[in-house]
Amino acid sequence: MNNHDFGIVGLGVMGRNLLLNIADHGFSVVGMARDPKKASTLLSESEDHMQVSATTDPASFVRQLKSPRAIMLLVPAGKPVDETIESLLPHLEKGDIIVDGGNSYFTDTDRRFIELQAKGIHFFGMGVSGGENGARFGPSMMPGGDKKAYERLRPIFEAIAAKVNGEPCVTYLGNGSAGNYVKMIHNGIEYGIMQLIAETYDLMRKVLGIKDSLIQETFSSWNNTNLKSFLIEITGKVLNKFDGDTDVRLINVISDVARAKGTGKWTSQNAMDLQVPVPTIDAAVNIRDLSKYKDQRRQASSKLIWESTAHFTDDQTEILNTLHDALYFSIINTYAQGMAQLQVASEHYDYGLNLEDISRIWRGGCIIRSVSLEDFRQAYIRDPRLPNLLLDDKIGSDLSDKQKSARSTIKLAVDAGVAVPAFMSALSYFDAYRSAELPTNLIQAQRDYFGAHLYERTDSTGTYHSIWD
Amino acid sequence: MNNHDFGIVGLGVMGRNLLLNIADHGFSVVGMARDPKKASTLLSESEDHMQVSATTDPASFVRQLKSPRAIMLLVPAGKPVDETIESLLPHLEKGDIIVDGGNSYFTDTDRRFIELQAKGIHFFGMGVSGGENGARFGPSMMPGGDKKAYERLRPIFEAIAAKVNGEPCVTYLGNGSAGNYVKMIHNGIEYGIMQLIAETYDLMRKVLGIKDSLIQETFSSWNNTNLKSFLIEITGKVLNKFDGDTDVRLINVISDVARAKGTGKWTSQNAMDLQVPVPTIDAAVNIRDLSKYKDQRRQASSKLIWESTAHFTDDQTEILNTLHDALYFSIINTYAQGMAQLQVASEHYDYGLNLEDISRIWRGGCIIRSVSLEDFRQAYIRDPRLPNLLLDDKIGSDLSDKQKSARSTIKLAVDAGVAVPAFMSALSYFDAYRSAELPTNLIQAQRDYFGAHLYERTDSTGTYHSIWD
Repeated sequence: MNNHDFGIVGLGVMGRNLLLNIADHGFSVVGMARDPKKASTLLSESEDHMQVSATTDPASFVRQLKSPRAIMLLVPAGKPVDETIESLLPHLEKGDIIVDGGNSYFTDTDRRFIELQAKGIHFFGMGVSGGENGARFGPSMMPGGDKKAYERLRPIFEAIAAKVNGEPCVTYLGNGSAGNYVKMIHNGIEYGIMQLIAETYDLMRKVLGIKDSLIQETFSSWNNTNLKSFLIEITGKVLNKFDGDTDVRLINVISDVARAKGTGKWTSQNAMDLQVPVPTIDAAVNIRDLSKYKDQRRQASSKLIWESTAHFTDDQTEILNTLHDALYFSIINTYAQGMAQLQVASEHYDYGLNLEDISRIWRGGCIIRSVSLEDFRQAYIRDPRLPNLLLDDKIGSDLSDKQKSARSTIKLAVDAGVAVPAFMSALSYFDAYRSAELPTNLIQAQRDYFGAHLYERTDSTGTYHSIWD
Repeated sequence: MNNHDFGIVGLGVMGRNLLLNIADHGFSVVGMARDPKKASTLLSESEDHMQVSATTDPASFVRQLKSPRAIMLLVPAGKPVDETIESLLPHLEKGDIIVDGGNSYFTDTDRRFIELQAKGIHFFGMGVSGGENGARFGPSMMPGGDKKAYERLRPIFEAIAAKVNGEPCVTYLGNGSAGNYVKMIHNGIEYGIMQLIAETYDLMRKVLGIKDSLIQETFSSWNNTNLKSFLIEITGKVLNKFDGDTDVRLINVISDVARAKGTGKWTSQNAMDLQVPVPTIDAAVNIRDLSKYKDQRRQASSKLIWESTAHFTDDQTEILNTLHDALYFSIINTYAQGMAQLQVASEHYDYGLNLEDISRIWRGGCIIRSVSLEDFRQAYIRDPRLPNLLLDDKIGSDLSDKQKSARSTIKLAVDAGVAVPAFMSALSYFDAYRSAELPTNLIQAQRDYFGAHLYERTDSTGTYHSIWD
């Protein structure tokens, strides 16, 4: 009793694997879940060298932990987090630590911090990314908030984190709800990249008309280029999976109705509140939503017809290289949008984020890890206050080189009638961002015309109103 | 004393003009504003045949109204609405009516309805559109909520509303906050159309390189085609305005940093909550936001270079016709997005909306009035439950005819390096909507790979998980 180093509430695949990871590193752990099956699954998965116990009872769970207690929550965002905290509170003592490792909305984290501070409980949010495998063998972790509490647990988190060149993919990120916020942006970027990969796959099958095997080989080979990343890697593997003993690739029998847990949506909605455009993330959210309207899409497909006018003069290798660079260009633009949101949020919420740190801990363990993160890290070393990755000379010139491929790819899709909203959003972001003059002067004039909303001039300060008729 | 028919609190340009409009129709009115200047402006603008009084004192304001009192609020959304209600309450009696005519967020309207119902005060939200001119000579009005209260005021609203073929542009729309909600969507569509017009203008000046005078003439002439609408009309007028006595067109000295009051943002954020994609509205919100980053855009313009490869084989008239049809195609897609959101919201919030009614009252008075609204009305007569305008045979075949122009326009912009996010979003919406198979099956597979989030199959029901490696 009361000899365990660390406890986790919520023994879904993430909680279980994280606990086993911690036990693997010599810490004694206890897990709690209301569902006895989940508790017993944890025990059955633990190995001989581990000290693992499990319970369904909050009182017993807390009793089994050393004081001051270290408890991590991995339960669904929203009400379940509050309910879990409620169930633990009667058994806790001042000085105990609760870490929320789920995808809680960041304002909930701020509220809980205040509520628990009043009770003497240390509370902080920590985003955890890496999926089930990452949780088991090395996730990327994004803690923020109560720094002293984090420091007490740092040895555990650094031990279990993914390592890149020996550096652990975890570090204290900033004040308040910074940890959950950074994880939210991570997931928003993840949505954008996944949609871009999906569009690339769609162009290969619908426009280039190449065989499944070549699509699969192409994505696999792209994991040896500047696209090297977890999401490209698993795309190659996913496309290589067959349906049981058949010769049908599993991908071809999976429904196109996509689901989502909301972190991408939160990223887009919050970006609009902060007035930071993240159009590729918006597009990804939109398409997951549109995917649900399967019946309408079926009806529309027989009513709204376009005969493809796409034709290639290039050979297949060349077209695939163009697609490759277009995807790279668009992915970097997506990271740029998310990092720009972090930069603005850091100021707005007083997080004090260090974008070099964030780039560093995203290099390993997490879902959006890629070789590009090291490039971003270097860019933030050159200028820690860089407002947008596109303004870094090296990244900017790299993208300038690749833009032609993005343009060709979009024109091909337009001729073919295949939707590429994420590709389009990335290019129009790039083109709008590099516009010293946008046509929004006309919008200002229209607003003043119909609503007397006033406008500014380019040649003097102040606001003006005109009688336009 | 206590003989006035109608009172308005908030004597900005909208409140003042609406009150004068009501007085013009023979009703006696009283206006209230805290600012004595605004109160005296109202009086100075009233004409001899009108019965108008003004005050800065809530008690006096309420005393001047016939019982049961009819009071409309035209104050900024948010706290000012609550403060105004607070200041009036001590002077009101059971049975009095308050109408919120501002752009209140719809959940605020629901909350206020409940709070005021407990006090015996009738409260409903009514969106008012038409800008200052519309308010003065005939707006489009969108009431919802307390139907009995609306019926008592109906004669006034029908008298002052814009008329199309003798039909007033006002009708009871639905339960609860339906009025404010419909107005929010109206404004979201307005954002989208304004952005599309701005992009068209941008292509004319930056790509086609045609003179200001021809740009102006072109927009003016387009108001005699199927683009006929208030926003096209005022674009022609705006572009025809010169800067004082100079020969510089005013548009060329107006800043491109655009402002917004938030209704477009609300539309996008709420659409994501309802899982209804409105990408053209998102794009419009994004560009207004991006416009604020003027310094970054200036820097980027000298770093991220693209030499235009755009070339035209068509003559100017033909290119302008292509632009015309591309704009038409994209505007209809924007309306389709907004109307689809209304259809889903009607179910979700139990508004009981009738989209034929909404199309009808939007034909006149409001900012997004256009000849197309009659087409939409006909479509909803054909099928009141039409989930998306794109599924109407007539509208669908019209768009199918015009899609080639949208595709050409986007390819031209891509070659030229001019950002057209709204045009792109409209086309990719169209192309994604008419896709029986989206590539989101890959997203489902990826999610199951890294997070064990399960997937559905096309050939059987239930959810599945695979070991992908």
